[in-house]
Formats: sequence, structure tokens, C-alpha cells
Amino acid sequence: MFFHKQELQFKSTPDQPDAVYARKLQEVLGGQYGEITVALQYEFQAWNTHIPGKYRDLLFGIGAEEMGHVEMLAVMIAQLLEKAPLGITEDAVQNDPTVAAVVGGMDVQHAIVAGAGARPVDSNGNPWQGSYITASGNLLADFTANANAEMQGRLAVARLYHMTDDHGVRDLLSFLLARDTMHQNQWTTAALELQASGMEQLPVPSNFPLKKEHREVSYQYLNFSDGKAASEGSWASGPTPDGHGEFTYHDGPTTTAPMPPPTRVDARYYGTTDLPNIVEKTAGAVQDKLNKE
Amino acid sequence: MFFHKQELQFKSTPDQPDAVYARKLQEVLGGQYGEITVALQYEFQAWNTHIPGKYRDLLFGIGAEEMGHVEMLAVMIAQLLEKAPLGITEDAVQNDPTVAAVVGGMDVQHAIVAGAGARPVDSNGNPWQGSYITASGNLLADFTANANAEMQGRLAVARLYHMTDDHGVRDLLSFLLARDTMHQNQWTTAALELQASGMEQLPVPSNFPLKKEHREVSYQYLNFSDGKAASEGSWASGPTPDGHGEFTYHDGPTTTAPMPPPTRVDARYYGTTDLPNIVEKTAGAVQDKLNKE
Amino acid sequence: MFFHKQELQFKSTPDQPDAVYARKLQEVLGGQYGEITVALQYEFQAWNTHIPGKYRDLLFGIGAEEMGHVEMLAVMIAQLLEKAPLGITEDAVQNDPTVAAVVGGMDVQHAIVAGAGARPVDSNGNPWQGSYITASGNLLADFTANANAEMQGRLAVARLYHMTDDHGVRDLLSFLLARDTMHQNQWTTAALELQASGMEQLPVPSNFPLKKEHREVSYQYLNFSDGKAASEGSWASGPTPDGHGEFTYHDGPTTTAPMPPPTRVDARYYGTTDLPNIVEKTAGAVQDKLNKE
Amino acid sequence: MFFHKQELQFKSTPDQPDAVYARKLQEVLGGQYGEITVALQYEFQAWNTHIPGKYRDLLFGIGAEEMGHVEMLAVMIAQLLEKAPLGITEDAVQNDPTVAAVVGGMDVQHAIVAGAGARPVDSNGNPWQGSYITASGNLLADFTANANAEMQGRLAVARLYHMTDDHGVRDLLSFLLARDTMHQNQWTTAALELQASGMEQLPVPSNFPLKKEHREVSYQYLNFSDGKAASEGSWASGPTPDGHGEFTYHDGPTTTAPMPPPTRVDARYYGTTDLPNIVEKTAGAVQDKLNKE
Amino acid sequence: MFFHKQELQFKSTPDQPDAVYARKLQEVLGGQYGEITVALQYEFQAWNTHIPGKYRDLLFGIGAEEMGHVEMLAVMIAQLLEKAPLGITEDAVQNDPTVAAVVGGMDVQHAIVAGAGARPVDSNGNPWQGSYITASGNLLADFTANANAEMQGRLAVARLYHMTDDHGVRDLLSFLLARDTMHQNQWTTAALELQASGMEQLPVPSNFPLKKEHREVSYQYLNFSDGKAASEGSWASGPTPDGHGEFTYHDGPTTTAPMPPPTRVDARYYGTTDLPNIVEKTAGAVQDKLNKE
Amino acid sequence: MFFHKQELQFKSTPDQPDAVYARKLQEVLGGQYGEITVALQYEFQAWNTHIPGKYRDLLFGIGAEEMGHVEMLAVMIAQLLEKAPLGITEDAVQNDPTVAAVVGGMDVQHAIVAGAGARPVDSNGNPWQGSYITASGNLLADFTANANAEMQGRLAVARLYHMTDDHGVRDLLSFLLARDTMHQNQWTTAALELQASGMEQLPVPSNFPLKKEHREVSYQYLNFSDGKAASEGSWASGPTPDGHGEFTYHDGPTTTAPMPPPTRVDARYYGTTDLPNIVEKTAGAVQDKLNKE
Repeated sequence: MFFHKQELQFKSTPDQPDAVYARKLQEVLGGQYGEITVALQYEFQAWNTHIPGKYRDLLFGIGAEEMGHVEMLAVMIAQLLEKAPLGITEDAVQNDPTVAAVVGGMDVQHAIVAGAGARPVDSNGNPWQGSYITASGNLLADFTANANAEMQGRLAVARLYHMTDDHGVRDLLSFLLARDTMHQNQWTTAALELQASGMEQLPVPSNFPLKKEHREVSYQYLNFSDGKAASEGSWASGPTPDGHGEFTYHDGPTTTAPMPPPTRVDARYYGTTDLPNIVEKTAGAVQDKLNKE
Repeated sequence: MFFHKQELQFKSTPDQPDAVYARKLQEVLGGQYGEITVALQYEFQAWNTHIPGKYRDLLFGIGAEEMGHVEMLAVMIAQLLEKAPLGITEDAVQNDPTVAAVVGGMDVQHAIVAGAGARPVDSNGNPWQGSYITASGNLLADFTANANAEMQGRLAVARLYHMTDDHGVRDLLSFLLARDTMHQNQWTTAALELQASGMEQLPVPSNFPLKKEHREVSYQYLNFSDGKAASEGSWASGPTPDGHGEFTYHDGPTTTAPMPPPTRVDARYYGTTDLPNIVEKTAGAVQDKLNKE
Repeated sequence: MFFHKQELQFKSTPDQPDAVYARKLQEVLGGQYGEITVALQYEFQAWNTHIPGKYRDLLFGIGAEEMGHVEMLAVMIAQLLEKAPLGITEDAVQNDPTVAAVVGGMDVQHAIVAGAGARPVDSNGNPWQGSYITASGNLLADFTANANAEMQGRLAVARLYHMTDDHGVRDLLSFLLARDTMHQNQWTTAALELQASGMEQLPVPSNFPLKKEHREVSYQYLNFSDGKAASEGSWASGPTPDGHGEFTYHDGPTTTAPMPPPTRVDARYYGTTDLPNIVEKTAGAVQDKLNKE
Repeated sequence: MFFHKQELQFKSTPDQPDAVYARKLQEVLGGQYGEITVALQYEFQAWNTHIPGKYRDLLFGIGAEEMGHVEMLAVMIAQLLEKAPLGITEDAVQNDPTVAAVVGGMDVQHAIVAGAGARPVDSNGNPWQGSYITASGNLLADFTANANAEMQGRLAVARLYHMTDDHGVRDLLSFLLARDTMHQNQWTTAALELQASGMEQLPVPSNFPLKKEHREVSYQYLNFSDGKAASEGSWASGPTPDGHGEFTYHDGPTTTAPMPPPTRVDARYYGTTDLPNIVEKTAGAVQDKLNKE
Repeated sequence: MFFHKQELQFKSTPDQPDAVYARKLQEVLGGQYGEITVALQYEFQAWNTHIPGKYRDLLFGIGAEEMGHVEMLAVMIAQLLEKAPLGITEDAVQNDPTVAAVVGGMDVQHAIVAGAGARPVDSNGNPWQGSYITASGNLLADFTANANAEMQGRLAVARLYHMTDDHGVRDLLSFLLARDTMHQNQWTTAALELQASGMEQLPVPSNFPLKKEHREVSYQYLNFSDGKAASEGSWASGPTPDGHGEFTYHDGPTTTAPMPPPTRVDARYYGTTDLPNIVEKTAGAVQDKLNKE
Repeated sequence: MFFHKQELQFKSTPDQPDAVYARKLQEVLGGQYGEITVALQYEFQAWNTHIPGKYRDLLFGIGAEEMGHVEMLAVMIAQLLEKAPLGITEDAVQNDPTVAAVVGGMDVQHAIVAGAGARPVDSNGNPWQGSYITASGNLLADFTANANAEMQGRLAVARLYHMTDDHGVRDLLSFLLARDTMHQNQWTTAALELQASGMEQLPVPSNFPLKKEHREVSYQYLNFSDGKAASEGSWASGPTPDGHGEFTYHDGPTTTAPMPPPTRVDARYYGTTDLPNIVEKTAGAVQDKLNKE
């Protein structure tokens, strides 16, 4: 159950309007690694978890916090648009190059569709979508997904920080950067704690019987490019982090199989084929069969 | 530049047709964490990298290997469909419950669109899409994304392993499981090596000036749910993995700001408002202005 | 700001597993008019509103309630999947017709991707998307959108009610049906109250100067089909609900304009044209120009 | 059956080229509430209707009219692009700020893909999609959807009206605004007539047996936010528009249920769990079982 | 301008209900090469054409015919669903294997969302989308696209023909197959006529100055796979169909260039780099600059 | 199996940065007819083919070449972005009109998401998607799709050629134009060779028994628009290219059928109906039944 409080976790007020920047901010609201993604991702992981207690609590709580981040960004975007020239002809001469540049750089749906409001889209206007979410039921995999989401998210916020001089905006981003720092540390820690508990380890899923995989290629670096430098990495020799093997390095595959012949399917799929009997059939048996059907 | 060789890295031949399983296999070909995703993700990361040498070689090479995995799965799927009853009426009585179940469980586009062939979609028939890919230019973030992709991918393959008894299919999955083991170990190792080199560390991006973030909330666990168990985790006290702080635990936010008032925008966006002057304007000044325009 | 409480607004426990029904329930979780849509739609409307007080409070509050409905459905779906045969070979013989029918009718990503968990998708596995949301800043338009969403939503729930005999599921649906009844009544009331206040009326937007539209066709029924029965409706004669006109009925358009000639564009778009000079130019002037460039 | 006439319902000729505006106009051609949406929505409703006569005729006819609106907009867009500088280097110096602003603000696919032509997309270039359409078979729900579509559509047209000074464009928009006025009035009237006929009423669907819903919450305003102003609305007390109840107001839920425990699923989904027996099994029985399989 | 007539071009009445087949038919209504695609594609080509007369008339007319095909299929689908068991519990015992198979194989949104009606989606439930459409302004390219669309479309109809024994359905398909035969012949003829007129030829666009392309590779077969059989094709030697060259055959590329070094970008994108000065800067100059900002 | 070589088929180095052009180039990398489409389309056709030898080799080889074209474009895009002002505030004063125009015209995700790198999207930022691909198993249909793809692709490249003066970019485009010339000629030749072999002919699929289609409309031009010029085309009289008939011309349909009455469905779909017995049932029998359920 969710409750809403008409406060923000941090103040979210820009110094001045900036429609172009409002569009850019949409990335961290509704983009692949924006706040809608993490809010819903953590909740879905909580709903799909198979383990009570601290991990589930963690997912429920951080998901709710992120939902509040969606709100802070939406409020900020609405304010950045509030007084901005969005292409309305009178108050801003349309062919003034400055206004033209604003219109060129803004999300025009901010004006036409939302009436100077925020939208559930990324910085290119692509609608947010459920396929951004990861929730597998395996917590080591999912915590790694979460760590990645917080890294990609903090990267976008850091880049956005340098794209404005507005103190109000930067102040909000400074807050979000700090929370992303926390959440990166937190998911990394949760992944370590999970491994330490023995509940899950590398390789994920760790309780799939290893002997059922083709162990001869489980630790081989197989090089399918012509660069040789990859052989210098610690992934090409030495012990593997899962503790079960030693890396080796090979150029190209160590196993191969002939390409199977093309499939031959029922004539009624009307695929192209050169089988003499099929060609004959076209004028003969199959055609008769088709005709009779 | 890419070259193709008409061989497979591993044999890919099923014992018998199985259209329902062919549909399921599409998940690891064209799903969010399927082989198309990792193949193109690693190549885009290589093209966007800002660092020559071993990491770029690694990305080029593994991406090319994964492209071959797309091929093995496509070939396998075509073979699983080759002799399967796909709803054609004559050779398989349509209202035979067994055939009906096959048709119910298969991807009908396998028959109608591809003529008994593989498709660039997931197991629900959703087309693969570019938004599955992550390539940020920051290698620690991207290697974490890659480790996650290999974990989610291996999880799907492991589940698929238990959904068939076909020895040919299982043998191919055993091979893919082994390569996923390798690639999980490899990206984990690459991330560690990158951190050891000092080129990138937690929190990503590590060279954003920490003092510019709101450090007072950088290591606080802020609880927005009513469960208390999350306080027991090592993310609620003790040192942080980035080496810069100590975790603390708080219930709810430690900072708040009042919700800003609603924005008031140009009347020509026709938003609803209760400002007396706006209501007046509707019958008066603004309306005049609108009328005059 | 959002807070989460580890309770549900209503009990959500099925009598028994049912993977096929779990898939169907996804429609009201992640479909066009599912709970994710209304939860986020009401919040975006609140964030984009231009009017403080009761309407904004209403949007904030109901949005938060709907977020809890997402949770109840996700929890229910996970439970319906908990013990269901999802295609794993051993505990459920794959070619048992009953199991085959389950696998045929279920969302296979429930098993392969979510490990027997809920997903942010509709009943056909299409990911939820931001383009389902409407938030225009005009409250009469948006309350009408909301009334529609609750109608379409209640319709889906009512249909789903008849697709199961499970008492636990039906009990939850009975609860949701009641809340949809409330929300239909509520948005209808809010739309009426808004109109009574004079802040917004038909036609939306009501303060666009009517004299600027082509009033001669503002109340004409123009018939573009050959059925005559539409002339019997109260939309074909009598006063209009906006209070500004009288409906009239006409067959076909009352105004027409000749189709403009095709556009003739710069030769460097390489469109096909039959202009003699263009054809000449291909071998002559334009070609020279192209060649010189 | 559809017939095409090479005339337009209204003249559609701009005074001068304007590529930036052409992009904006795409919203009402191919956006969520653009003309493709209403044209196809009304036809699908006609095809799915379960009632002959005036309502079906209405749907067939208005759908065909809207298809003609798609055409007027497409023709207008092509003309706005006809002579506009679309980034071709010679006739318009690329680094001229004016041209740069045009290119910045235009839909570049207008030039690269359509060769100065219209596209089936919205103003951000998102392709039109079938999920914009609503056609449920329940006419009160669908007429409400239609009224909303005409409101959102007229809102966008009104905003677009203020974004240009071109008389030709404004004249077309004046025509479309008038038709939207008609269609809003018409769907509102149709919804009223349907209710008056007793065929459908609030709450939709009105013949679902009310006693089967949890009537104790059918008319309760349940407040999940901390604003109190919503209690002042006529949705918080007084009779409900469906004529069956009285609104009441409550803070928070009036019913609650404990959050169910996490689901425990088959070990072969490889979800993370802390059940001792599962952990044991990992090293023991289940692992054996997995190994044996 | 479009007009609708309440007749069909061909009778569209099934012998009996068949929900599973209704789902399959959606492919040719709302799939990539379904009737919505060709209807809108031909109209968009007409709107974007740069040439008056017969080609534009052809596009307008055939587009309108195809819109009527959408209608025939929608009507047929609604009828196939009319009496079919769609999962409602009472009239069809849910766990009857036959009913279960129907539900497994049907599009569940037919029941839940459309109330036993047609939908704007393909046979896997993917919504139709504007990106299926091709309309470039170049008629030779577009007529080739149209010929392809009619080929892929007829292929799907032919496959669907064999998936039912229903005489009413087969009769409709026989009609559609005939029209597809006509339309394949027609677009092929139109493409030939266009080439004969000299207005457009191979390679498209034919008036791009050939000397501006790298002519040394304009007719070379470059083999990037290890099969040799492709050298036997008439694309590997002999005159080219554009009349300007001779095919030649080569193994691999005939030109190559070194891979450029990785790009080095502004430090504020926080990409990973190994430049010593960048690493230094992190602790030094750049960091100072970042700190100062 | 695919191998990667760290060379390019052609040099890909721009003279100078140009972020706006980088965005435009995305069209031919990740658009509907971009290089990702053709690369994967040809491979899927190879995997789905039912015929060994030269055609399959051709598909494998050209697909691999196109994958290298994706790479050349990605590398070029990264270089165009390398030194471009992407909205970072310090090195490029944000409100400088030139910089503003760049930001307005660029793909902002190039900066925010990819850190000055290429993305798997088109020039409007729409992610590439699997539904761009055609692979039907019928080679005449698919070779026609391929010819179309190369035509649409070369058209986009030719337009892009005129949108830049950069010699490095133009040189790369000159190379791609030449390869598109080759590939158009090649697929056209392959289609001709296939027809000459008798394996496939017009109409596709050519071995569907012609007598099973409604031959009376197989060669009729049926005019559904009011233009008469289409009757002048060679598609309105004379022999058909499939060699089986003669074109004829008719105004409007030559066959019609009455529109079937609306469907009447189970009351539990809650569709709107005016059947007296249904209306009665609402207050009577059906309602009782619903109540009892």
C-alpha cells in the first residue's frame, strides 16, 4: 500500500525557465535508467521475491523513495516550462533566433500535449516502457541489475549537471547524485552480503549443477576478433572469480560443428526450394493435393 | 568488419520437432537479455569506447562470438519447427487436442509470417528493440551491465533446460550455459581490473567531484516502507564499499521541502485554473486578447 | 513523496494456482487501462495541474491508492503462479494434455523471465508504456479521460470475474469493482463540479474564442456513410449540450475544396516527377548542378 | 467499403513554407489523439458493435470523415515542407543560424525518409500505434473515450493555433476546431441518449450485479495523500451520480489485509531463497535431483 | 475525402465460431503486411507524391479498396468470436481440454479488452504501428515496396488458407488471394511503366550522379562468408540490370582502412580512459576544473 | 559463426565535428532501412531458407558485409561527436545561438546517454526494432523486400549526401552509395534468376493453386477513387506480367455483399445491445443468472 505526502524529499525549484533543459531532464525521469524504471523495478522485485525479511524490506523501501524522485523531477520540469517561450507566437516572436533555438531544442509535446507539463517519456520523447524493468526472482542477478541502473543513472545526472548553470537545478541534481552514490553502495553491499550468506554465488544461478554444462569451455577466453590485446587481461589467465576454475586463452572457437542443411518444410508454407521432387510436385503431385484440398 | 563462416561453434540439432519449445527458445535469441542484445551491446560499447587496447579488443571479440550464438539458436529454432504440426489442417487434424495444444502454445507467426522459421522476437512475440542495449562510454558501468546481462541470460537458459527432455536441445543449452559462466566471470574480472587500475571506481562516475553532491545523504539508508528488517543489512551500518563513508540508517527522509505551488502558465495552453483574474479574463481581458489575435 | 506500508488494502489470496488466469490478470495490472496506467496518470495530472486545492489533492490521493492496486494484483499473480505447472518437465509431464493446455495459455515469460513472478505487461505480454497516459493540464478533458479509464477498467474486471471460479480471486475482483464504481462516480462528479464552477465547459477548451472557429460547421452532423439511421439521434437535431447551438443534419460535406496539386520539391530529394524540365534536367541542368556539387 | 474522392472537406493551403510547424502538425495527424486515432477508433467500434441502427451508423460515418481529416493534414504538411530549407547544403547555407534553427526544430525524417512528405508519426517522431485505440463493445465506455479523444484533440489544435501566424494554416485549424466542437457535443449527446434509453448507465458496465461487488467501499472516498482539501469536493459527500449511493469520506483505507508472505517456488526457477531446507537442498537433495535430471 | 458504404466487397461470414483462427486472421488485418499497412501506405504515398495523374490516382484508389479489406477482416473476426467459448466459466467448463485449448490458442484480449471484437493488432497481439509504412516520394522505390507488401501479404493469406476448413473463411481468403494477385501484377506493371517512361530507373535514385559514387565497387560481389556457391549466380558475372556495368566477384573486401583509434571526449562525459594526463587530471587539473565549476 | 577484424571496409573519418549531422546519420545506421535492418534481415533469411547453395551463400555473405557497414557508421558518428559542443556549459556558452542551434538539432541522448557515442536508433531517436525485418522463407518475396530495402536505403544516403559538405563524410557516403548500387542490382538479378529457374514466379506464392482463388477479380483494376487517370496505365489493360491473364478496368467493386448484422455476444462481455430480451434480461433472467453465478 502506498501513501503520498505533499512534500518533497528535497527542494526542486529552478532559478529561471529553460524549456531545452526541461527536455533533457526527461531522460532521468522517463528514460531507460530514469526514476520510473528504478521505482517500478524495485517494487516488482519485491513482489516477485521468494525470501522474507531484510532484502524484501530494502526493495519495498527504496522503490518508494524512487517514486518520490519521479515526483521531484516532474515538479522541476513543470517549473522549467512555466514561463518559457514554447512557440506561442505573440509573447515571443517566432522567428527570433533565440526563440527558434528554444523551440528547436525543446520537446514540442511539452507544449502541444501537456500544456507546459512533464511527460512519461525520455529526452527524445520515447514513452517509458515496461521492458526497461528487470525482476527475475534471483536476487544476485537483480541486485547487479540495480547496481548497473544506479551507475547508468548517476552518469546521466552527472552529465546533466554540466549542461546547466541554474543553481536550483544543480542543487536538485546534487541531491540526486548523493542518493545515487548511496544506492550504488547499497546494492553492491547487498550483492556481497547475499554471496557471503551462501544463498547465491557466481555463476548465477549458482545451484544449477555445474557438471551439466560443457565445462571444457566454462573458463576459456575464445577470441573472435583479430586484436591480441585481450589476452593481456586477467580474464585470460589466472583463477576465476567464481572460485571454480582457471581462465585460459584461445584464438577462435575450440569446438565447431558443420552448419546443418536448410530445413525442408511442408509445401503449404510456400517456401522456396530446389528439391526436384518439390519442383515436380508443383506441376504434379503436391499441386494435385493442393488442388484437391 | 565482420566475416561469416558456415560452421557453428557447437552442434545445434534437436532430436525431434517441438514448436512450443521453439517459441520458448526465442526468449534467449530475441528477448531483453537474449543473444541479439549482448552481441550488439558489446559492439556498441566497443564503438563508443574511449580507450584502446585490451578492453576494446575484449568487446569486439565477445560481441562477435555472441552473434554466432544468435545463429545457433536461429538454426535450432528452424529445426524444431521443421516437421512440427503448425496448424496446417490436413496433415494434422486441427481439433486433435494434442495439435490444438501445440498451436495454442506455439508462436503462430512462426508459421504464418516466417513459414516455419526463426524470428527476431522474444518468447511472447515482442520484436527485439534497440532500447535493450546499454553503451555509455563508462566501462565500469557497462561491464556491470554486461555482468547483469549474462546473469539474466544464464538464468533463462537454466530455466529452459528444465523445460525440455530433448537431448539435442539440452546439449546446446549446456554449451550456452558454459559460455555464460565464462562471460559472467569475465565481465566481473574486467570490472575488478578496471577498478584496480584506478581508471574508474565506485561511485560511478568516480571522478565527479564528490563535494558537489549533497554528502549528508550520500551514505544514509532512508526507509520509506514500514518494514524494519532492512536495518539489519550491512547497507545500514559499517563502511561503504566505495571507501569514502559509513552507512547510517534513518526512518523516512532526513530532509524535506514543501511541495511547490502549481505552475501558472500562459492562458493559451488552455489549462484549468481558478485564478480570479484568469476566470475574469476568460470573459474579459484574456478573451479579448485571444479574440484580437 | 511516497511511503509504502507492508499491508494490502484488501486480501489477495487465491484458492489455488492458475497460470492461465495469472496471464489474464496481467491485463488489469499492465494493460492500456490497467492499474499502472491510472496510478501514473493521476500523479502526472497532479504534477501538471495549474490549480491548487481539492482537485490536486484528489489526483494525488487516488493515484497513490491505485499504486496499491498494482501491488495487490502483482501479489495475486505471483501466488497464482506459485505452485502452477509452468512447463518444467519433471513435476508435470510435458505432454500431459492438461499441462500442455496450461503452457499454451500462460504467459511463458512468467516462467522464463520472472521465475514465477508478475510482469509489467498486459495479457498478451506487451510491455506497459508511457503513451497510455493522458495529462494535458486541462482538467475537464483529463477527468473525462479518467472516467473513461475507470469504465474500460471496470469492464475488463467484470469480464475477468466470469473467467474464474476461484473465490479468492473473485473476492479481490469484487473489491476492485467497487473501487471502480467509486472512481467512475468520482470523476464524473468532479467533471460536473468543474463545469458548475465555470472554470471549464464544453467545448473543451471552452475559453478558445468561438468566433475563431468555422461556426457554420460547429453543430452540423455531416454524414460520410450511407446509413440514414444516424439522423434519428439527438445529435442530429435539437439543442447542443454546450448550450451554444442547434444540431443540424447533412448528407456528406457542406464545404469542399479541390485537392491541391502534388508538391514539387528540390531535385535533391530524388522524388519521382514528370515535369518536362525536371526530366530534362536529369540529363541536363540539374544533373550538371548535381555533378558539380 | 470505402470510397475516395479527390477533394478535401476544407481548403488546406499554407501561405508559406514552415518545416518546424509541419513537425508540430504531425501531433494532430499521428499522435495519441490525432486523426488516425479517431478515424480507426470509430471504425473499430462500429465493427465491434452489438447493436444495429443509429449508433453504428454514427460510428461508420464519423470515422470516414476523420479519415478525410488525416488527408487534409497530410496534404498541408507536404505543402509546408515543399519549399522549406530542410538541411540541403547548397540552397540554404547550413551554418546560417536561421537555417540551423529550422533544421533543429524540424522532423529530420521529413527530409531524409519522406523526401519532404508527411509521416504516420506524432510531433516527436513516434510512430502511430494501434494501442491508441479503444473499442470495447460497450458503447457508454466507448462514447466517453470518444468525447475524451475529441477534447484532447481540440486542445492540441487550439494550442497549435497560437503557434503560427500563417493564415492558411489557421484557417484549416479553425475548420478542425469547429468539427471538434461538433464531435464533442455529439459524443456527449450520444452518451446521454444511451443512458436515457436504459441500455447502459453508470457504473459501466451497469448490468454487472452490484451485490457482487464489495458495496461497503463503492462510494467511499479513501484518502491516500495528506491533503485535506479533497474532502470539500462533491465527491466526498452527497448523492452519487449513478443514483445508487451516498459519497462518504475517509482518511486512508477502511479495510486492510496483511501482506502475504513471499511465494516459494520450484527450485528449478533458481530464485533466491533462505529456506533452510532449500539451502540444504542446494548441497543436498534438490541438488541431487538436479544432478540426476 | 473518404466515404463509407455499408456493404462489403465480398461476403464475409464463417460457417462456425473459431476463436483460435480469429487470432490468426489478425495477422492479415493488423500485422506488418496486413491490410491496415497497405491501406495507409498507399494513401501516404499518394499524399507525398510529386507527380499528378495516373500514378497518384492509382495510389488513392487502391488505398481505399484496402481500407475496405480491413473492414471485411474485422467483420469476419467479430463473427468468428461471436459464439466461441472465450474462457467464460459457465457456458464452457474451463477445465474441459477443448475449451482450455481454445483459450490457450486465442488472443485473450479479444475477450477481455474487445468483448469478443476485432483489434488493431497482429496475430501475436502486437499493436499495428506507423513504422510498417513506406512512403518516400520516389515511386520506383515505393512501388517495389508495394510489390513486396502484396507478396508477403499473399503468402500469409495462402498459409492461412490451409489452417482452416471453414468454407466461409476460405471463400473470403480466395477473394483476398485474387486481389493480391491483381495487386502484385499491378505494382510490378507500374514499376515497369515508370522505368519505361525514363522518370526513374535502377539504381534508385537514378539521377544521383553516378560519378559521385565509388564506381570501383558498384558492381563487385564482395564475399564475406566462406561459401563459394554465390559465385555461380548471375550476380557474380555478366551485365548488370541497370545497364551500366558488369558484375565481378571477389573474396572479401577490395578496399580496407585501419580502424580509427577510439575517440577522446570531454572529461565531463565521464567516459573511461587510460590517457595518463586524464588519469592525472582526475586527481589534478581536470578535477580542479570540475571542482571549481 | 562470425569473426571480427579490426579494420573497416572503407575509411570513415570526418573533416570536423558535426553533432547535428551525427544525428541524421543515425537514420542509415538504425532506421527502418538502415544497416542494422539489412544485416539482420539477410542473416534471418539465410537461417530460414529451405534451399542450399548459391542463394543461401549470398544471404550469409551480404549480411556479414552489412554488419561491417553498421560499424563504419557507428565509428563515423562517434567521431562527428568527439569534439562537438553537446551542451556542456563551460566550453560552449549555452546561450550562444550557434551552440543552441547545435543542441536543438542534435540527438541529446548522444550526450546524456552515450557520452558522445553512437546509438541503436534512427534519426528521431526511435530504437531499432525487430519488426523492421522481413524473412518469410519465400525467396522471391524476400529478394523483392531486399531490393526495396536497398532502394530506400540508397535514397536516404543520397539525401544525406547533400546535407553536408564534409569531405570525409561524403567519401564514406560515396562508398555506401556504390555498395547500394551493387546490392540493388544483385537482388534484382537474384529475383530474375529465381524466376528463370521456375522455382518461384508471379504471383507469389506461385504454386498456390490458382483455381482456388476468385479468378474473376484476379486481373481487374477496381477503382475506389474518383480519378479516371489510373485507367490510362498499363495495369488497366493488356497482358499481366504473371503471364496468366489480361488486365481489365472497372469503376468501383464488381462484387458486393450486404454488411452482416452486428454480432450478438454472451451477456457477460457487457457489450451494449438493444435486444428487447437482453434489456429485459438485464432486469430479469440474465440478471438473475448473473446474480446467481
